[in-house]
Parts: sequence; structure tokens; C-alpha cells
Amino acid sequence: MFEIKEELLNEFAILAVEVGVNVQKGQSLLIQAPIEAYKYVRKCVEVAYKKGASKVMVDYVDGERTKLDYIYQNKETLCDIPKWQIEKLKQNIEDGYARLVIIGEDPDLLKGIDKEKVKEARIALLKAKQDYQYYSMNGVGQWAIVAYPNVEWAKKVFPEETADEAMNKLWDAIIKTSRCEIGKTKENWTKHSKEIHDHCDILNKYNFKKLHFKNSLGTDLTVGLVKGHIWSGGSETSTGKFKAEFQANIPTEEVFTMPDRQNIEGRVVTSKPLSYNGNIIQQFSLSFKNGSVVEYDASNNLEVLESILNSDEGSKSLGEVALISHNSPISNSNILFYDTLFDENASCHLALGACYPSTVKGGCEMTKEELLEIGGNDSINHVDFMFGSDDMEIIGETYDGQKIEVFKNGNFVF
Amino acid sequence: MFEIKEELLNEFAILAVEVGVNVQKGQSLLIQAPIEAYKYVRKCVEVAYKKGASKVMVDYVDGERTKLDYIYQNKETLCDIPKWQIEKLKQNIEDGYARLVIIGEDPDLLKGIDKEKVKEARIALLKAKQDYQYYSMNGVGQWAIVAYPNVEWAKKVFPEETADEAMNKLWDAIIKTSRCEIGKTKENWTKHSKEIHDHCDILNKYNFKKLHFKNSLGTDLTVGLVKGHIWSGGSETSTGKFKAEFQANIPTEEVFTMPDRQNIEGRVVTSKPLSYNGNIIQQFSLSFKNGSVVEYDASNNLEVLESILNSDEGSKSLGEVALISHNSPISNSNILFYDTLFDENASCHLALGACYPSTVKGGCEMTKEELLEIGGNDSINHVDFMFGSDDMEIIGETYDGQKIEVFKNGNFVF
Repeated sequence: MFEIKEELLNEFAILAVEVGVNVQKGQSLLIQAPIEAYKYVRKCVEVAYKKGASKVMVDYVDGERTKLDYIYQNKETLCDIPKWQIEKLKQNIEDGYARLVIIGEDPDLLKGIDKEKVKEARIALLKAKQDYQYYSMNGVGQWAIVAYPNVEWAKKVFPEETADEAMNKLWDAIIKTSRCEIGKTKENWTKHSKEIHDHCDILNKYNFKKLHFKNSLGTDLTVGLVKGHIWSGGSETSTGKFKAEFQANIPTEEVFTMPDRQNIEGRVVTSKPLSYNGNIIQQFSLSFKNGSVVEYDASNNLEVLESILNSDEGSKSLGEVALISHNSPISNSNILFYDTLFDENASCHLALGACYPSTVKGGCEMTKEELLEIGGNDSINHVDFMFGSDDMEIIGETYDGQKIEVFKNGNFVF
Repeated sequence: MFEIKEELLNEFAILAVEVGVNVQKGQSLLIQAPIEAYKYVRKCVEVAYKKGASKVMVDYVDGERTKLDYIYQNKETLCDIPKWQIEKLKQNIEDGYARLVIIGEDPDLLKGIDKEKVKEARIALLKAKQDYQYYSMNGVGQWAIVAYPNVEWAKKVFPEETADEAMNKLWDAIIKTSRCEIGKTKENWTKHSKEIHDHCDILNKYNFKKLHFKNSLGTDLTVGLVKGHIWSGGSETSTGKFKAEFQANIPTEEVFTMPDRQNIEGRVVTSKPLSYNGNIIQQFSLSFKNGSVVEYDASNNLEVLESILNSDEGSKSLGEVALISHNSPISNSNILFYDTLFDENASCHLALGACYPSTVKGGCEMTKEELLEIGGNDSINHVDFMFGSDDMEIIGETYDGQKIEVFKNGNFVF
């Protein structure tokens, strides 16, 4: 039977709570977790209290139950977000809380469920929470995402294995790509984060006007970068009531910045499937003109892609561009995780939808209108999709017209 | 390994949702459940939706995590009930929701935890919710409680058995005492509820002024009953937005009514341990004068008893008197469940604290002041304790001075 060693579970809790969300003395913490992870959650709660958290709250998510909601509730009920839920979010933000999200569910969970219902419910929830999105997006409060294995997910990743063996393999892959190692986790992350920060420094010095991506899959895309953009990655520091270094994504390999939403031209073809709200799109392509998607196609689930693009105006443009060397641990594992947290870190990626205000100078102090004015993007969505490959070439163009090679054969040249 | 047969789990979900809370078409349902019961919860959710529930919400409780809250949070934080939580309760009540509580936790959960902290946190929560207590207490919305086994609980009840064997035995005991039988559960409950209703009819016709309890354990107690009291038991009908027959306690054997809070004299000695908020009091006694506790003693955990009695004025008097024949399924099982839901139904019991307004004519329409005026009791508490025995004698006295034998050798005489 699949069982995780106590010691490793403890270390993984230290990773999530101390390295990831880095909850501070006197700060409250909300953990969102799949129901099957309750034993791991207890570990995280204890680590958080030992670090001095004032209060730890837990919201459990049960995918199987959510599915029943989608099957049996009508649209009106699904879209009616209770006021207390927004009240709760507001109060937690006033309180300066930190947020830890533990993911891990069946990538095919919502297969066969009415996609229109799912889409409308999702939009209703995002809209209800829209005014509070800044809290995590701007890094006001610390947040982090880690993964915990789930049988259906494990069987999707390792379909040939028994349930127990698949769980063992997935857990092993999570641990390794998350750089979790008994007694060494913190040190691993200090080193890793420094390497990412070094890459950011180089890119920030070049201060590119635009990047040109090209590979044999069919991608031939120019992405303008906003003036004053900042390449970010690795640990960040929260700006709110509690100033603390945190590591939002575990694992992470990316450096990322803010595209100019009106200055994207050409075509991008994805290189990995996108698992979105329980549906998988194997491959899709997007063509941009003046920064907006004008043509699109998908190998399957075209209506899911359409539902993303049609959510709002900002969903048709980009909010993030991220660079990851093809030679990186997740990519080298050759595992397709069917989960963005992992797969986006195996490959260069873009995101449809909202930008991260922290990726432009002064962005966190700008109003929405000011962000739009400088070329940032606003949306209820932020959907990452992967397009990196082993033959990706990236050329950066500076404001004085210099062309600098950034990627060759899928990897950073510096 | 302990595993429950799918078919029985389904039948037990039908018991909770159809017989117990009897959720109505278009009504929302909140399920409160221990985290370990999540597979059972899914069954309940599905039964509820198939019955036409508009929305099913689930609040999970994790005893082990709650314990960490008590260990690490300071009193101030523990007693600070977030506003959104009360907002949620209010919105659910406005919505006319039904509530299903699934219990099942370690009876010794809070052993060794600072009792003062637990008490203050408990009082803060009860006070915050006080204004909404009427919703269930008055039967405005349907509610029900069922039990689901938990390893620590099972090992407490069957300490000689292995964990798996103890779980099997506890589950078996829950199923049997809950009259759950594949394909026959609904029929069993229709019959059982009729028998209880018949007992109520007889007692209501006698319209006793007071009851006198006496046995060899040392109980010698006279409990006055309020004028216009109603003996209740078995199924009830909710009075709010949705009028529906519901079965609040599963299992249940009791008929119960409202004592006159100023007219209780003598001494009562408990016959079964009281498991209260994770602490067990083996035995205690209370002496009443003019309806109020004037002396008390306990074999252990005296401070737990004191914390109950000192919660507020109403905690020193009674809100319920309940009669159960010693010859009843739970009593005959000879199992001490260390849980009030079961143990109170093995034995005559009383409750310290709030009365049920529905147990007096017009009670549900009375203000708190009016209820107090007629002899009802008000409190943030409602704590049942058991005092029945195989030699319990009960004599009822009518308003015209007749003395009628109600119990002989522990059982109803009619």
C-alpha cells in the first residue's frame, strides 16, 4: 500500500510552509488542500504553528464532490457565489494572511461534464473575487503552491503501473522536482533561487524591446516587452503587513516578465498538453495581430480553448512570458505531469490573461487603468500554456537595434 | 483492512439524507463531517442531489487539527470568531437550509489540553451563534445527526481489539442501533417512529405536574414539568420555508419534554460516563434546590463539570428530561459508546442548559423572555447526561394529585 515515510512528509511540510509560503510570527495562514491530503495538511499546520503562525485555517477541496455539484446544480445556483465567501476573503486580506495551496487532483475530473456550466461557474467565481486578485498577484501577502499525489492523477501520468506503484512514482517525481531532500531542502532552495535571480539580472541588464521565438513546431512569434519590465523568478518578497521572502511555485524553474499586450505578432504552437479545469487540450495554436488572438485551432476540446479566449477582452492577449531551459530537472524527467505547475516549468511558456504587476517597475502601485496604459494586461484569467522545445531559438532585440541570442537549441546561451 | 461495503454505505446515506434530514426539492443542505468520512460524505451528497437538493455544501472537521489549534493558538485568537462565519450561518438560515451533522471522533481527543482554553473558545463560539440557535432548536429547518466510525473512537469502545476489528465492531454497532438494513431502513424507521409517537400520546394525556425519579445509585429527584409541556420524540416536522418530516437523532429511543427550570428538587447521580469536548467524566452527581444546582461532585475531571455549570446562569438548571426504557437496543447492546448520541439513548437522561421550545405549546412562537416566564430554560449550553438504570422507578403526579407509575425496574409500565 502507498504510504509516505513520516520523515519525508515532515520535510515536505517544511518545504511548503517555511520555504514556500514562509508564514511569519503572528500571521494567519489559510491552507487549501485536496481532502485526500489531510495527513500532510496536519504536518503543514504543525510546522506553521511552530513557526509562530497566529491561526491556521484549512479549506478542503474534494474533486469528486465538486463534480457532483457540476452534474446536479443548475447554472443559476452554480453561479451564485455566497456573499460570506467574499466576506471571508476580504477579512483574511485585512488580516494580512498568507495562503498555501496544495494541488493534486484527477486531470480528467470533469471529462464529460457540461463545459458551458463549468465555464460560467468559473467566470462567476473569478468575477466575484476579481477585486481581491491583487493580493496574491501583486505579492502583497505571501502565497505558495505545492503538489500532493492523487491516485487518478498518478494513473494518468503512469498509466501502465498499478495504483500503488503509480502513486509511488508520482510522489517520487514530485519530491525530486521540488528539490525536497531530508535535511537539505532549505539549502537546495537558497542555491536554486540564487541561480534564477542571476539569470534575471542578466536579462534585466539587456532590457530587451522584444523577443523573437522560432522552432520547428511552427512557432514564429514576436513578443514585445513593456517599458520598464522586470524579469522575475525564484523567491519574491511580500509587500503587505508582513514583509517576507516567499517561493510561490514549488517546483519552479522559470524567469518571467510582462509582455506588451498590444505588441505581439505571429503564431505560437504549443508543445505540451494543457490541462484546464479537468479537461485536456492536446495541442493548440494561436495567431496574434496587434497583440490579440485573431486565429486559433486545437487538436481536440476546441470549445475549451474558445471558452478561455472568450472569457473577456484580456483573455485574448498575453500577461506573461517565461523562459526555461530545455535542460532542466522537470524537462529531463521526461514525465508529462498533466499539471501546469510542473509542465510549465519544463518548457518556455506564455499566459493568456492577467499580467503580474510586479513584473514592471512601479507596477504594484499602479491602478488597473495605469497598467493597461503601459501595456499590461487585465483579465479574470491567467492560463499558462507551454511552447518550448529542444530546438527553440530566441533572439532578443534591444532598444538600440542590437540582436542578442538568448536561447539556442532550447537552452539559455548565457 | 476495514472497508465498508458500497451497498451498506449507500443505505446509510439514504438513512441520513432521506430519513434523517429529509432534504426537500429546491432546498440547500450543509453537511458537517469528520475528514475521514469523505467517501461516505460523497454518497450523502449524491443522495441529496438525487432527492432534488439545490446545493450541497460540506464543512469538514479534523479533530487532530482542532487539537493543534488548541495547543498553539492563544486564547484571544481562539475566542475571535470571524464575522464571515456568522454571516455564513445567517445566509444559510435565510436560504432555509437543512443541516446534516456526521459525528465520529476520538472521545479522548482533548485529553491533556488546557481545559480553560477549550472552555473559553467553546463559549465564544456558542455566544457568537446564540442568535441563530433557534433555527435547529425550534425545528425551523430540518437537521439530523448520524455517526461514522473513527479508529480512535473504535479503540476506545473496543480496547481489546485490533484497530480494524474495532472499526468493524463499531460500524456494526452503529448500523444495528441505527436500524439500518439494506432495503428496509425506511420501513424500520416508520414503524419505530410510530411506537415513540404512541408513548408520547399516553404521556401527553396524563399531563403530569411533576415526575419523581428514584434508584439505588442514589438518585432521588423531583422534576417539575412546565404547564402545557409536550412530550416529543421520533420524527418532527420543520416549521420554516420547507415543511418536512425529519428525524433529528439517529439512533433515537427517547421521549422528552420541558422541565420547569425553577421546580427541580433533590439529587441525581449519573449512570454512564459523559464524554464532553474530548474529556470524559466517569460519574458525577448534582443536587438541585429551586431548580438550580447547589452542590455537585465528580469522580474525575471536576473542572470540566464546573466549566459547564459556570458557563452561564442557565447551565445550572435543566432544559430537557428524557425517558428511555432500560430494555432498548442500545442498552441491550451493552456497549458503552463514549458518545452522547448513543449513550443518551441507552438511558433516561437530563440536559443542563437550553430547553427545546417545541416541547411546550406555542413555544416556538415565544420570545426568550416568554419562555423563561413559563419555566423554560435559556443557555448557550445543552449538555445531556445519563442517569437511567435497571432499577429506575418513576412516579408521575397529575395536577389533581394522582400518582401514576410510569417506570418500574427501569422500563415503561405502559
